[in-house]
Amino acid sequence: MIEKIVLIGAGNLATQLALALFENGIQVSQIFSRNPESAKELAEKVNAGFTNQPSELFTEADLYVIAVKDSAIQEVLENLRLNHNQLIVHTAGSVPMKILEGFSMNYGVFYPLQTFSKAKKVDFSVIPICIEANHPLNLMKLQHLAARISSTVHQINSEERKSMHLAAVFVNNFVNHCYTLGAEILQDKKLDFDLLRPLIQETAEKIQTLHPLEAQTGPAKRNDQQVIDAHLKMLQNKPELQKIYSFVTESIYQSQIKHAHDLL
Amino acid sequence: MIEKIVLIGAGNLATQLALALFENGIQVSQIFSRNPESAKELAEKVNAGFTNQPSELFTEADLYVIAVKDSAIQEVLENLRLNHNQLIVHTAGSVPMKILEGFSMNYGVFYPLQTFSKAKKVDFSVIPICIEANHPLNLMKLQHLAARISSTVHQINSEERKSMHLAAVFVNNFVNHCYTLGAEILQDKKLDFDLLRPLIQETAEKIQTLHPLEAQTGPAKRNDQQVIDAHLKMLQNKPELQKIYSFVTESIYQSQIKHAHDLL
Repeated sequence: MIEKIVLIGAGNLATQLALALFENGIQVSQIFSRNPESAKELAEKVNAGFTNQPSELFTEADLYVIAVKDSAIQEVLENLRLNHNQLIVHTAGSVPMKILEGFSMNYGVFYPLQTFSKAKKVDFSVIPICIEANHPLNLMKLQHLAARISSTVHQINSEERKSMHLAAVFVNNFVNHCYTLGAEILQDKKLDFDLLRPLIQETAEKIQTLHPLEAQTGPAKRNDQQVIDAHLKMLQNKPELQKIYSFVTESIYQSQIKHAHDLL
Repeated sequence: MIEKIVLIGAGNLATQLALALFENGIQVSQIFSRNPESAKELAEKVNAGFTNQPSELFTEADLYVIAVKDSAIQEVLENLRLNHNQLIVHTAGSVPMKILEGFSMNYGVFYPLQTFSKAKKVDFSVIPICIEANHPLNLMKLQHLAARISSTVHQINSEERKSMHLAAVFVNNFVNHCYTLGAEILQDKKLDFDLLRPLIQETAEKIQTLHPLEAQTGPAKRNDQQVIDAHLKMLQNKPELQKIYSFVTESIYQSQIKHAHDLL
């Protein structure tokens, strides 16, 4: 059983994870962050201890959760002084589990597939948590912990998780960038971005029940060359947007052709 | 005052518009569609008459709403037999108002900025309706009608509406295509698209309060070349996705640089 948890990191993911654990009655014992303000701020929210000194990290916890940015994981691991059999997990989509090998005999991954901000509360119970471990017993422990905060727990290996992370880049980062480009187009005409917000909301909501291929509409799907040409002309002073417009339009059309039979 | 409305079209937009009018106590008198089944199906929902014969269209309505696909508007207009002073509007984002010139002395545009499906009910009250008219009196009539079904009515000219439609293509069609590409990446590993649905929902919800530039996260924003290279390598057998990945990644990075000062 996992009873004593040390959380390393106090960023977006760490914050939301600590809150979810706390609200489900799971105590985080200690929070570590290089930034003492961040550590303190989060620790106070979840009634945990905190430190910014690696030397003050508890050495006898049951679980160490490394929730820092990908590029900092290695350094965190090198600063941990453990007795080499405690369970260590990281929370990163694109980092293989085996980065943890050699730092403990017990290790795994605890990856919640969501976008997190410190300030925006999320409903953790609907967030898929992808777990992986080096041993069935560790997997069982992670399964048990994950199931206490989410109703969707999946065993996913490092290779699959890499693909999930790539897919997440498309549906989150790239989608969000499309919002940015939409905002830029409106801004040029001094039109308010608020006009697009209901459309953005509905576009995501449609997908909660439909497959995106079924939900697609618009000039690219219809191959409406007249509208497409007019749009490309409107973007002639924005070569970067024009390029994205062309490629995505072509890709939409190809997807519709390729999958037309799947939908029939 | 607009009392007698003829709705031309029984597709996605026409269906949701008719339902919104009906629920707000505004009677559509007649629905026209080439497809008699569609006309009948919608007419029954909103207690309206229907026809698929241009010759049977009411000639004395106060308002004719043309809610058909862009490329069919011209043909609809040529088949209308009116006394040339009734108010005619179309509902298209990318079609200028002046296409209506010559068919009546009174015309305008009634463009609800949203994505519609026949089956999925939408809350019309939050949908921005963009209106334009050839005369202040007609504008007033449209303003009055729009305000009965939506709390957000904007006077938008044809040039601005074209930009809004282009922005809508980015935040709806292109966003939806990013969902499709995410689904395709998961499918290759036999992973369930359901895993992405909470992330898709949250990505859109974040934007209801944040500007998308603030909401952005991920490898492109951080210029994390190691992750970007790994992703490009994973897409090496999908040149089309690889191309989109490269251009959007570059564009995200450029946007963050360009707007960094706006956010400080």
